Amino acid sequence: MTRLYHAPLSPFCRKVRLTLAEKKIEVELIEERYWEQGQEFLRRNPAGKVPVLRIDTKVMSESQAICEYLEETVPNPPLMPRTAEGRYEVRRLCAWFDDKFHSEVTANLVYERVNKKIMGLGYPESKNVKAGSAKIKYHLDYLSWLLDQRRWLAGNDMTLADFAAAAHLSCLDYISDVDWNRQANVKDWYAKIKSRPSFRSLLADQVPGFPPPAHYADLDF
Amino acid sequence: MTRLYHAPLSPFCRKVRLTLAEKKIEVELIEERYWEQGQEFLRRNPAGKVPVLRIDTKVMSESQAICEYLEETVPNPPLMPRTAEGRYEVRRLCAWFDDKFHSEVTANLVYERVNKKIMGLGYPESKNVKAGSAKIKYHLDYLSWLLDQRRWLAGNDMTLADFAAAAHLSCLDYISDVDWNRQANVKDWYAKIKSRPSFRSLLADQVPGFPPPAHYADLDF
Repeated sequence: MTRLYHAPLSPFCRKVRLTLAEKKIEVELIEERYWEQGQEFLRRNPAGKVPVLRIDTKVMSESQAICEYLEETVPNPPLMPRTAEGRYEVRRLCAWFDDKFHSEVTANLVYERVNKKIMGLGYPESKNVKAGSAKIKYHLDYLSWLLDQRRWLAGNDMTLADFAAAAHLSCLDYISDVDWNRQANVKDWYAKIKSRPSFRSLLADQVPGFPPPAHYADLDF
Repeated sequence: MTRLYHAPLSPFCRKVRLTLAEKKIEVELIEERYWEQGQEFLRRNPAGKVPVLRIDTKVMSESQAICEYLEETVPNPPLMPRTAEGRYEVRRLCAWFDDKFHSEVTANLVYERVNKKIMGLGYPESKNVKAGSAKIKYHLDYLSWLLDQRRWLAGNDMTLADFAAAAHLSCLDYISDVDWNRQANVKDWYAKIKSRPSFRSLLADQVPGFPPPAHYADLDF
């Protein structure tokens, strides 16, 4: 039995969901109101965060550690390159998105606009929303610069780095915060990853009170 | 030529320094005033952070990606277990310290007390210092709970997880923010890692305006 405790607009959960789906690991998704920090949930993960992956009796947290574990135990299809240099670049980019991009963009936009309301923490702080809207432009330009030199973000094959980036961008796209006209090659890259069967479950997500825009699930956006 | 651009009280830099030293990789340490975001520095690392490791012409950032790269390219002595489960646990704990412990403890204490002054950002916010002082207790208890079951943090061998934890604790110890009397097994574990030759360079660090307490470099603390 494999279960993922998750939240729909968590980029960390989405990265794990994409990895599970690409590796054809069947998983039962269970939505977790992790901010309520229920006893049962804290027992599973003392860090009090999602995602938490349960495989039989093994309970795992920390999205990057989970993805690396899945890569090592279910090697096909490979989502990491074979060389140490290639793997370094994947890990660097995963950290870039899960750390820098997350604090500069995702937290300022998705957290402010959606999570705060769901958690009952009030209205978005406009200063943060402005900062996020400004910073995403630089990040889209950085993605574009990478894609000028490579077919996928970390090299010529699709890797965890693409999932990390697409996980964040898909959350932002759910609230119409990505300007897809800014960089044509970023849009092309996202269209490619969005059309994969592994992405379907993300495109079907619905957050009560926040209906996604029409283009969110549209493969021809 | 191997160079590490670093800051003395950065736990991320210290984790990389310990890894380099354990693997007997000679490195030239260059202190970087990364918060000034000089052009030259940003060219090396667009994320604008330390550590940045330069090996010949290869420039690397993100401490965990660097440590995994060193582990793969210089396998001896091994700092990761052989099993996927063991490696998962190391990565989970590295993320625990570099993410959760960092935001709850290190940022609230080291950043508030030292970095802000060095960066010219004013006085410590007492609310944050209080929060950090309260949270470190829970983390020391968690370390103690782990060490009740294991010789080292992630299992019976020393790994990157020990370096991640010791990197944070050593920065906090530099400003006397660790109560070593709280958990005897945590003190024993720290004494063991502190006495390794790889730790010497950390114990010799001096931050102008912040002399370390006498016990900081004392192996019998």
